[in-house]
Amino acid sequence: MKVGIIGATGYGGLELIRFLHQHKEVESLQLFSSSEAGESFSAKYPHLEGLYDAPMEAIDEAAITKLDVVFASTPAGVTSKLLPSLVNKGTKLIDLSGDFRLQDRALYEEWYGKEAAPADTLSQSVYGLTEWNADAVKDAALVANPGCYPTAVLLSLLPLIKHRLIDPSFLVIDAKSGVSGAGNKPSQGTHFSETNENFSIYKVNKHQHIPEIEQAISMFAGADVSITFNTHLVPMTRGILATSYAQVMPGVTQAQLVACLHETYANDPFVRVVTEAGAIGTNRVKGSNFCDVFVQLDERTGRATIVGVIDNLVKGAAGQAIQNMNVQCGFAQTTGLHVVPLFI
Amino acid sequence: MKVGIIGATGYGGLELIRFLHQHKEVESLQLFSSSEAGESFSAKYPHLEGLYDAPMEAIDEAAITKLDVVFASTPAGVTSKLLPSLVNKGTKLIDLSGDFRLQDRALYEEWYGKEAAPADTLSQSVYGLTEWNADAVKDAALVANPGCYPTAVLLSLLPLIKHRLIDPSFLVIDAKSGVSGAGNKPSQGTHFSETNENFSIYKVNKHQHIPEIEQAISMFAGADVSITFNTHLVPMTRGILATSYAQVMPGVTQAQLVACLHETYANDPFVRVVTEAGAIGTNRVKGSNFCDVFVQLDERTGRATIVGVIDNLVKGAAGQAIQNMNVQCGFAQTTGLHVVPLFI
Amino acid sequence: MKVGIIGATGYGGLELIRFLHQHKEVESLQLFSSSEAGESFSAKYPHLEGLYDAPMEAIDEAAITKLDVVFASTPAGVTSKLLPSLVNKGTKLIDLSGDFRLQDRALYEEWYGKEAAPADTLSQSVYGLTEWNADAVKDAALVANPGCYPTAVLLSLLPLIKHRLIDPSFLVIDAKSGVSGAGNKPSQGTHFSETNENFSIYKVNKHQHIPEIEQAISMFAGADVSITFNTHLVPMTRGILATSYAQVMPGVTQAQLVACLHETYANDPFVRVVTEAGAIGTNRVKGSNFCDVFVQLDERTGRATIVGVIDNLVKGAAGQAIQNMNVQCGFAQTTGLHVVPLFI
Amino acid sequence: MKVGIIGATGYGGLELIRFLHQHKEVESLQLFSSSEAGESFSAKYPHLEGLYDAPMEAIDEAAITKLDVVFASTPAGVTSKLLPSLVNKGTKLIDLSGDFRLQDRALYEEWYGKEAAPADTLSQSVYGLTEWNADAVKDAALVANPGCYPTAVLLSLLPLIKHRLIDPSFLVIDAKSGVSGAGNKPSQGTHFSETNENFSIYKVNKHQHIPEIEQAISMFAGADVSITFNTHLVPMTRGILATSYAQVMPGVTQAQLVACLHETYANDPFVRVVTEAGAIGTNRVKGSNFCDVFVQLDERTGRATIVGVIDNLVKGAAGQAIQNMNVQCGFAQTTGLHVVPLFI
Repeated sequence: MKVGIIGATGYGGLELIRFLHQHKEVESLQLFSSSEAGESFSAKYPHLEGLYDAPMEAIDEAAITKLDVVFASTPAGVTSKLLPSLVNKGTKLIDLSGDFRLQDRALYEEWYGKEAAPADTLSQSVYGLTEWNADAVKDAALVANPGCYPTAVLLSLLPLIKHRLIDPSFLVIDAKSGVSGAGNKPSQGTHFSETNENFSIYKVNKHQHIPEIEQAISMFAGADVSITFNTHLVPMTRGILATSYAQVMPGVTQAQLVACLHETYANDPFVRVVTEAGAIGTNRVKGSNFCDVFVQLDERTGRATIVGVIDNLVKGAAGQAIQNMNVQCGFAQTTGLHVVPLFI
Repeated sequence: MKVGIIGATGYGGLELIRFLHQHKEVESLQLFSSSEAGESFSAKYPHLEGLYDAPMEAIDEAAITKLDVVFASTPAGVTSKLLPSLVNKGTKLIDLSGDFRLQDRALYEEWYGKEAAPADTLSQSVYGLTEWNADAVKDAALVANPGCYPTAVLLSLLPLIKHRLIDPSFLVIDAKSGVSGAGNKPSQGTHFSETNENFSIYKVNKHQHIPEIEQAISMFAGADVSITFNTHLVPMTRGILATSYAQVMPGVTQAQLVACLHETYANDPFVRVVTEAGAIGTNRVKGSNFCDVFVQLDERTGRATIVGVIDNLVKGAAGQAIQNMNVQCGFAQTTGLHVVPLFI
Repeated sequence: MKVGIIGATGYGGLELIRFLHQHKEVESLQLFSSSEAGESFSAKYPHLEGLYDAPMEAIDEAAITKLDVVFASTPAGVTSKLLPSLVNKGTKLIDLSGDFRLQDRALYEEWYGKEAAPADTLSQSVYGLTEWNADAVKDAALVANPGCYPTAVLLSLLPLIKHRLIDPSFLVIDAKSGVSGAGNKPSQGTHFSETNENFSIYKVNKHQHIPEIEQAISMFAGADVSITFNTHLVPMTRGILATSYAQVMPGVTQAQLVACLHETYANDPFVRVVTEAGAIGTNRVKGSNFCDVFVQLDERTGRATIVGVIDNLVKGAAGQAIQNMNVQCGFAQTTGLHVVPLFI
Repeated sequence: MKVGIIGATGYGGLELIRFLHQHKEVESLQLFSSSEAGESFSAKYPHLEGLYDAPMEAIDEAAITKLDVVFASTPAGVTSKLLPSLVNKGTKLIDLSGDFRLQDRALYEEWYGKEAAPADTLSQSVYGLTEWNADAVKDAALVANPGCYPTAVLLSLLPLIKHRLIDPSFLVIDAKSGVSGAGNKPSQGTHFSETNENFSIYKVNKHQHIPEIEQAISMFAGADVSITFNTHLVPMTRGILATSYAQVMPGVTQAQLVACLHETYANDPFVRVVTEAGAIGTNRVKGSNFCDVFVQLDERTGRATIVGVIDNLVKGAAGQAIQNMNVQCGFAQTTGLHVVPLFI
């Protein structure tokens, strides 16, 4: 297969390269950039010297539509304009930005503060939460790859909401992310001396992943919810851990909660149900496409603590995107992704 | 004043030394250790070379009761046995362990798994959450210095619960701490290579600070609550940030929430009400005795996000202990503590 | 191929698993442990849940000699006793400890403070600095995999010494390592709160890698040297950067130094000659088997700065060991190792 | 005393504030900024909320010359233009930039790539390496506060060179710094995700502190030297550790080396001679004005390893500047600086 990446210079792009490099079905990999076309990729990223030395190519429709699959890994607001004309030209498209995730254009414009993608293209896009939507992904011309936070939150919460084990009326989701989620552009908020040894909260009640999570809970678990969702910055590079809280439904036991997770993901190679709290941590999934999920009922209060853990750059971005490509192309989901987490 | 520290070799002890060293009312500082008596303090902690080279002293009742103030900074289960015979001998006692915080002995034994302190000594101990209990601290022979998490949680939540601005029936508290809270004893869970670049959850629903927080909410805000409280380990050394969630009472506005915090702490030098989310972070209080508090109402859901931030070793331990000493001794609360946070 | 790892629970073992898991010639992987036999591997290391759940096996000669290749990744002093009886039984052996690196038994005993391996086994061992000794490795029954520091130092220095471009009479080598080099056993020196945000020097002039480096310089570059070599601990998990200093020989130019490195490694897939100082850093090789080398002549002083950079756990341990296995077994050196560095 | 800081928004400025806040002789502190005049200081730096809320003042000669002491903490190239007209107007000046350190204007222009300060002002400036130049500092109208690296290097090397215990003809200095030395301006090279978990070398043989070190060795130790000096970036915020290497003179012993350091600094409160390698590390001086020095002779090679450790923002900048102010004003050197290192 011939594969391309638009916006390869971001961290999502780097991770796509890292995994596609080892993907046995990928024959060639072309890197596109709007602003840095012509520049050698390894001149920008010396860790790829000897691996990806060729110059980046300008974004060109003719070149792109010759490819089998194209990943778009650009900031929000770019692919809503770039991809519509590429849909249904025979090239499978996977968008890692937020532009095609929200089906409600008004909602996008409210939370992103940008113009939404055209309605007709939106209606053809499929939300690529692979474990929950593989059938639709299979035939999708355009996959909207989920956000990093929604992936960790939804994989841990959806089974329990869908099976009515927890009460969706008061869902509190407290999420924490490593700094790589902020991308590769320097700013005061990601300046080493002020980020290192600092734990902070950001975008209080305003994160654009809120409507994405609510839409997916409605879509996959049939519950219309208003979540409380906050995000924090952890002084580390990779990893998301989302801790959610909800009242369990009357009579629900710890065993039922755990069984629900086990049953839901019995055939999913990348979701692991962890039963020891001590085994939950971002380094257990680091560099891999795993999502570890955990639930613990507090008998004292009748509330459950539900945890989802991912590597934000892998299962939260590039890894899930390749998992979706595998589904679209009929490969095993694990092709190119069956790696051991780094741990240290 | 002549001051002593029992258990000086822990991190709480080190911070007591750091601040007492600069305290203008402290004339001498004696360091006691059960296991390391006779060893030079700076031989163990070379950063104190030239400052505290004298050998540590054995714990001796006669020596201790000659002092004006003694801080006990030992693990749980030690001071419950050590301090009872020292109470009311003329030496002011400040205990940084958890042994005298819970008035209910059964509760202590359930959550700590150790024998509780004698009831008569317990009844003389005063819970040293300075901003809320200074009058009682003033005359206390034995101050039970609050836990690190409870300090951050209570200072941010108490005003809002007391004034019935938030609904205490469903309180979710998601707390995060730097690794120094685990003390100075090496373990797999604090081994650098497995702690660095790892964010994890621990003691799910089982942290011994749960009953301490519930007791204080009852005591100071008159509400009997069952909190949901979880703790996470952040790959940094210092700092606690606790994010709490609750429904606000009908009609309550953001302005009321903020005003409540401002009014509560108008005369407290160490609590700062922060109104910009971007200004909340553990590095803003690092090395200082400040507690920064923040509240944000989400109009969409009617729930409030409430944040408390401290340096766990200062306001969460040594700093608050010295603040209590200042109150006990009639000094200004800021004596020896009026330092600028490090930030970087 | 059937492959085994003795001492799989160390960090070297974890990295062997990570790479062997993806090695297309490896059919089965058995994990041996002396102290933890019978325990599920993933119970100890939950990041491997679903991947390596089987119990570890006791170290058993009969079981081991049925394998094609066995890696020994145990502390110094263990394999010197364990491996002699396994040599020449048809199983290829690769030892990651220091026990078979020094051919001079007295030198081993002086620097390691342990009894050296038997002379006859030592004489059959081959020093596995792959780029410099592949011919000997090919036929070796027992490969002594190089130390982490020696790998970074030798790959950068050997070409310049061998070709007499730098003066070996005054070689200063200042090396820095991430904390994972200290292994997985907790100690005060690797306790997070005292290691984080601390840069320190250790084993001043006493590191056991000194004689290993000197032996290899003599063996591969024909120069008998007494190096000055010091090691420092960097508050990060992975990576070694070694900075060496030497006077260049009269008339030697920067171009000659760079050309020498380029020519030496023209056909070596894992050594990259970096020509921009800004492109040198441990994150450029993180998680990969690359060694980046760099040289810069200071015209002002006539001295060269020579840098070698590796991931200590990969090229400095498990990666190079697998590279040696590939050579022993006649596979391409890059088999199972052709991965893209993580960078972030 | 009335004190001012020009360029208060840099990290040097923040540390000046942190220490001057506690300095008993400082009655008022005015903060000046060229670009941010009028802005509230704590609006920019919320950790100072409640402490320094007043707006910054424009840089105004009349306002400045009313002060007793003014610190200039601006980037290189600014004070060379700003300070000349302020000299000898009755205000003591302490410049933390590099503009007045090099007496040779051509050397400044070569290494800094900027126009040098006027010769007549330069000739009035005194190099403020306090331990070695206090007599001159005492009467100085303008103190050129030393660079961070030179402070660590010179305090450790000068005694041994001056007393001819080491051979100055081949001095190798390998220095490592935390990231705060790069200042508060975001850049790719200080972006968290690319700086964290990365150890790198920078400005190979080109650091502008090279001529400063050489000038000081000539000035204070009477030796004209050409040093080899390289700098590395450590993924931590604070701290410099410089490791130097030199041949010792014939017959020199370890005891003589240590004695020389002890005798040199017998009366200096901020230099500590450390005799255990295990006690050397940047966290032992963190947040304090200490410089720890160490020397170890390697009998095997006849070479000495010499180490100097400081907090780059304190002894390497703001702390030493205040130490110089104390000398200029006739206060004890330790006034306002006698703090205990943070260690953790």
